[in-house]
Amino acid sequence: MRRFIVVGHDAVTSGDFGLKDLAGATGRLDILLRCINSVFMLSHSLRTDAELYLVLLGPPTPPRILRMVGSELRHLNPDERSTASLVRRALSLPSEGSSTPGIYLQHRGLEELLREFGEALVYLREDGDDLRSVDIPHGATFVLSDHKALTREEEQMVMELRPRVVSVGPMPLHADHCIVVVHNELDLRGL
Amino acid sequence: MRRFIVVGHDAVTSGDFGLKDLAGATGRLDILLRCINSVFMLSHSLRTDAELYLVLLGPPTPPRILRMVGSELRHLNPDERSTASLVRRALSLPSEGSSTPGIYLQHRGLEELLREFGEALVYLREDGDDLRSVDIPHGATFVLSDHKALTREEEQMVMELRPRVVSVGPMPLHADHCIVVVHNELDLRGL
Repeated sequence: MRRFIVVGHDAVTSGDFGLKDLAGATGRLDILLRCINSVFMLSHSLRTDAELYLVLLGPPTPPRILRMVGSELRHLNPDERSTASLVRRALSLPSEGSSTPGIYLQHRGLEELLREFGEALVYLREDGDDLRSVDIPHGATFVLSDHKALTREEEQMVMELRPRVVSVGPMPLHADHCIVVVHNELDLRGL
Repeated sequence: MRRFIVVGHDAVTSGDFGLKDLAGATGRLDILLRCINSVFMLSHSLRTDAELYLVLLGPPTPPRILRMVGSELRHLNPDERSTASLVRRALSLPSEGSSTPGIYLQHRGLEELLREFGEALVYLREDGDDLRSVDIPHGATFVLSDHKALTREEEQMVMELRPRVVSVGPMPLHADHCIVVVHNELDLRGL
């Protein structure tokens, strides 16, 4: 299983948003939508061995987590708008649960997630070690941030778990592009 | 300069489309929009050393080319909808020209493009040689296709130019993900 955690510092925690201004009116949910695409999309199929946790920390009721499970997903298409529509449906649930196969709303935050998956963490950070030269354990969990870096408090939580700190290259990439590069590296290693 | 050519076999050649169903009503223009993101987007900036040619072969007036120049681009954001809006404006021009800085509509097709940039071609194909082990010339032009492979005729035009035929990895990736991997490889090589 390839597991990704992406922290959305301002991302909305309710389904009360329109689909016309995803970059402006949702706390940059658009970044997380592109991460969904990167985690799961293959040409003409999905990565069924991948799992994604979006940590949503924006208003009105943070924290929320959207868990997405590649092997269970249905109705996921590569375009941003239709993905936003699926996410909106999940965020409109009155309590924890699932609105579409493979997408789960959870009322918890980063701390609980890290407690669950902290054993083989890989933290993507621009100044980390070169991804290609780092030993990546099977079943690793990759932690990324959205357009903002992890806060000092969040980073402290991650660092306490002694993650590998890894960079994908010399250029500052968006989170969704980092995920593409990580997948490619694991594909080539046969992990 | 890093140059990418992406062939959109069904992609619309007029600006007469809505922004609500980009994956359905535009001949998969959504794929090309994501390629725009991959070619130009860095975290908090743009790749000014990149250039993209979208070859549009759908109705009503194929072929059309959209040329996008990283060093000139303004108003480009990472989300699909706003990018679609820029593309729509360019496709609405009554003749060749520019509607937004860095975006040019051209009334020509793949053959003319290949004649211009055929000297150092890299053709991305699933069964190609491993990208990491191939010598990539400085100023190479990368050729990719959308959700459909190049037609036999198109491929013949490309192969006559004796391109390097390259694969980014063992999994079948979307064109936009291939571009991310190519950029990363060139970044790491310092090309």
